[in-house]
Amino acid sequence: MRTVIGVMGGGTASEVVIAHARRIGHLIAENGWVLLNGGRDAGVMAASAEGASEADGLVVGILPSSDWECIASGVDVAILTGMGDARNAVNVLSSRVVIALPGGAGTLSEIALALKGGRPVITVGFPLGDEFASYREAGRLIESDTPEDAITHTKRLLERDLGSGSPWR
Amino acid sequence: MRTVIGVMGGGTASEVVIAHARRIGHLIAENGWVLLNGGRDAGVMAASAEGASEADGLVVGILPSSDWECIASGVDVAILTGMGDARNAVNVLSSRVVIALPGGAGTLSEIALALKGGRPVITVGFPLGDEFASYREAGRLIESDTPEDAITHTKRLLERDLGSGSPWR
Amino acid sequence: MRTVIGVMGGGTASEVVIAHARRIGHLIAENGWVLLNGGRDAGVMAASAEGASEADGLVVGILPSSDWECIASGVDVAILTGMGDARNAVNVLSSRVVIALPGGAGTLSEIALALKGGRPVITVGFPLGDEFASYREAGRLIESDTPEDAITHTKRLLERDLGSGSPWR
Amino acid sequence: MRTVIGVMGGGTASEVVIAHARRIGHLIAENGWVLLNGGRDAGVMAASAEGASEADGLVVGILPSSDWECIASGVDVAILTGMGDARNAVNVLSSRVVIALPGGAGTLSEIALALKGGRPVITVGFPLGDEFASYREAGRLIESDTPEDAITHTKRLLERDLGSGSPWR
Repeated sequence: MRTVIGVMGGGTASEVVIAHARRIGHLIAENGWVLLNGGRDAGVMAASAEGASEADGLVVGILPSSDWECIASGVDVAILTGMGDARNAVNVLSSRVVIALPGGAGTLSEIALALKGGRPVITVGFPLGDEFASYREAGRLIESDTPEDAITHTKRLLERDLGSGSPWR
Repeated sequence: MRTVIGVMGGGTASEVVIAHARRIGHLIAENGWVLLNGGRDAGVMAASAEGASEADGLVVGILPSSDWECIASGVDVAILTGMGDARNAVNVLSSRVVIALPGGAGTLSEIALALKGGRPVITVGFPLGDEFASYREAGRLIESDTPEDAITHTKRLLERDLGSGSPWR
Repeated sequence: MRTVIGVMGGGTASEVVIAHARRIGHLIAENGWVLLNGGRDAGVMAASAEGASEADGLVVGILPSSDWECIASGVDVAILTGMGDARNAVNVLSSRVVIALPGGAGTLSEIALALKGGRPVITVGFPLGDEFASYREAGRLIESDTPEDAITHTKRLLERDLGSGSPWR
Repeated sequence: MRTVIGVMGGGTASEVVIAHARRIGHLIAENGWVLLNGGRDAGVMAASAEGASEADGLVVGILPSSDWECIASGVDVAILTGMGDARNAVNVLSSRVVIALPGGAGTLSEIALALKGGRPVITVGFPLGDEFASYREAGRLIESDTPEDAITHTKRLLERDLGSGSPWR
């Protein structure tokens, strides 16, 4: 079974964030991991899929819709949930580690659902408030600044995660 | 069709938060609204259900489980989703207004999913960070200090919400 | 906690089926049970809600959509799932007993999901094939001809169901 | 984007059905399609995953659980939904064509949800009753006897399906 790393972030994003998303996708593929994201042809989803695709990685997109429309071109396998934002729970439960780039309420819901489900979250250039303090202190929420840092943290977390469940559930 | 108000918050909570949850439940019932919450026999869910129940209100609990176990005694109608935290999306979409008391990642996911789905959120004694700034500025996230304030804001929001959809979707 | 009885059936239906749906809704309300259905303003959903409403019963509709649109007028509490047909699983898990009138693939999925989830199913004028034989033989799928028969079977099943879970899970 | 073919069937199955599942998995891989199934280490799921894996195919398992446990060894990418049987809707919406082997209520729910969602279904040695007649007549439900026949029908359906949506929605 292959290791799946989730990448979350805004459907609209700044140029810097888009560049980070693409770079993270590239690094995930280079490490032999599967990239999982929300699959839509927009923002962080499209850019991370493209980055992984360029490095010959496998990309799985978990879509909110029930038709094969508006899917990012880098997606290899489209999972159509037809369940709108409830699919955010699937995105994060399926990921060994969740990397979160800046985004709006959708991305924030994925960060929160990941932490609730026991999945570690690494943010990249996306500072969160004190309401997340307990997760930060427990080492379950890690804040980083660059794609390279995020990948270093991902490797460390994967080395710790030895079981079939999450160490934090 | 009756007006449904969602109350979210921690499965574990301080005495003050529990008292606020009970009071909010009471006020929701007094206003003739239906109280919707996560339905479990714990924390804010149990307290808000009890408060509404004492004031003869109708309480709908949306449970993560698929059996009739660990349901708060104040719940009149239990909706068993069997879908774990993905049910958080159902909680907030079904609510005209979401009132959020302090909680952990589960509550944060409900706040974020509500904002994503176009439902207004009123927090009570639960300050959130700058990552929510755009929603605060748009008037979609309102921060209050007391149950009474939250109910006043709820009334104002209900007066504005004239259509069948959300004004913010 | 109140007893919830689910009524499933086609979004389009014959006059006889519509009359049966309305009668079943009426009888559910008269027995003091909550009627749960798919909530849409069509076919068996609209007719059963209307029947229960006329008898002052409480009606909960579990909608596939995320907006307050196309909801049957008899629905008191609308649960908006935003998850399309995946909500069919919620419909049946939330019901102590599922009564199924004739319908298409949606109704068939609800019958099958109910049986999978350990909820007994009573059909009314809707003969099913041999692929359901094992459930029929186990007494978990009961075929009846009239609304009155379905209610008689429902009462017997409720008397047997003493625990918090399903006897068939 | 790769073509995804779903294989459904019982978690317990006869030797003949297991052999068919393995053969179908093998043929799906040989045709260059992705095999999608329910992912559990049991019955048709395990056998079809093994068959595809032996032929170097890619296997995606959509699990009902939220932990990496009891997953079939042939699964390459595990999608953990944490939503129990509601994940059956995801299984079929994500599949261009659904091949169904004999099974119980879970499999029947997948057949019904597929037809509801506009996905064609090909059964193999699994005769269904008259309640499915309208789908059979419309060519959306095809009954076959062997894995080879099922694959022939799959190819024909894929040639017809030119758009991004389903021709039957």
